[in-house]
Amino acid sequence: MMERLEQQLAFALEIDKEKNIFRQTSLSGLGRKENDAEHAWHMAIMTYLLKEYANEDIDIARAMLMCLIHDIVEIDAGDTYAYDEEGKKTQKAREEAAADRIFGLLPTEQGRELRAVFEEFEEGTSKEARFVRAMDNLQPLILNDSNDGSDWQEHDVKYEQVLKRQSRTKEGSEVLFQKTMEILEKHRGRGHI
Amino acid sequence: MMERLEQQLAFALEIDKEKNIFRQTSLSGLGRKENDAEHAWHMAIMTYLLKEYANEDIDIARAMLMCLIHDIVEIDAGDTYAYDEEGKKTQKAREEAAADRIFGLLPTEQGRELRAVFEEFEEGTSKEARFVRAMDNLQPLILNDSNDGSDWQEHDVKYEQVLKRQSRTKEGSEVLFQKTMEILEKHRGRGHI
Repeated sequence: MMERLEQQLAFALEIDKEKNIFRQTSLSGLGRKENDAEHAWHMAIMTYLLKEYANEDIDIARAMLMCLIHDIVEIDAGDTYAYDEEGKKTQKAREEAAADRIFGLLPTEQGRELRAVFEEFEEGTSKEARFVRAMDNLQPLILNDSNDGSDWQEHDVKYEQVLKRQSRTKEGSEVLFQKTMEILEKHRGRGHI
Repeated sequence: MMERLEQQLAFALEIDKEKNIFRQTSLSGLGRKENDAEHAWHMAIMTYLLKEYANEDIDIARAMLMCLIHDIVEIDAGDTYAYDEEGKKTQKAREEAAADRIFGLLPTEQGRELRAVFEEFEEGTSKEARFVRAMDNLQPLILNDSNDGSDWQEHDVKYEQVLKRQSRTKEGSEVLFQKTMEILEKHRGRGHI
C-alpha cells in the first residue's frame, strides 16, 4: 500500500507546478495575471454555486473534479490563449503527451480514471463537461468585465472572436449564456471589443 | 432570478481576492510563497486522490467544497500561521466577522449553506472535516518536505509544535498519519526541526 501512496504523493507534488503556469487573464483590480491553479479553484467554486443554472442536472463531484484537473496538462504543454490560432494547431498533440506523462505518475487505474475525466472535458459532450466549459468561459469573463475588458484590449480581440467562443456557454447553461451576452453587448457598446 | 444571479456573481468576484492572501508555505523549488486559492485547489485534488485512506467513507463532493472554501474568510481576516500563538488568540473573532460579510453576499439560503460547510470545517468533528483537516496539514507538509523543511527553519519551528499540529491528521486518516510521522522523523533526524 505504501508504494501506491508514494505514487499518489509524487503526483500531488508534481501538480504544484501548475501554480506557475500563467494565463492571459488578469485578476480583478489589474494586479497581475492569474495562474492555472487559481483559475481551476475559482471555476470549481463557481460550478458549485451556479449548478442550478445547468441545462441538465449534473453530478457535482465529477464536475468539480473536472474543473480542478482540466488544466494539469499545461504543466508541460503551457497555456494556449483562447484566441491564439497558431498555438491551437499544436495544442492537442502537446496536451496528449503531457497527459501521458503526468497522469502516468499515478497508480495505473487511478491515472486512467483522472485521464478519462480530462478527456471528457476535452470532448465537451457530457452534461458535466458542457457546464464546466461554460465556467471555463464565465470565470475569466467576470474578471475581465470587472477590469473594463482590459484583457481583450491588450490582445486586440474582436467581438466576433469572443462571441464564437462564448457561444458554447449556451450548451451548458442557457441562463448563463443570457448573462454572458448582456456583458458582451455592454463592452461592445463601450468599444472594448 | 437575475437578482439572485447578480448576488452569486458578486460573491464569485469577491473571492478573487483570495488569490492575494499569501501563506507561510513555499511552493516546491522555493520559488515564492503559496496563496490561499492555490492551497485550496491543491487540497481539494489531494482529498479526491487520497480519499481511500480516510478512516471513514466520506461524502467527496462535500469534502472538496469544504477544501475550496475553508480559507475564504482570510480575505478579511488574513492568514494566521499555524505556529503564530499571538495571532491565534484573535483569529476566531476576525474570521467570524469575515464570514458574516463574505457569505452574506450570497442569496440568503445559499450563504447559510456555505457558511455551514465553513463552520463544520472549523469545528472539525464531522468525518469530512476530519479528513479535510488532515489535508490542510498534509498539503503544506509535502511542499515543505520537498524543500528540505525550509518553512520550519525560516520560522524556527520546534519538533513538538509540528507534532502537536500534525497529530490531528490521525483523526482523519491513520494511514496518512503514519506517512506524516515518517516525514517528521526524517526531518528531525536531519536537524530541520
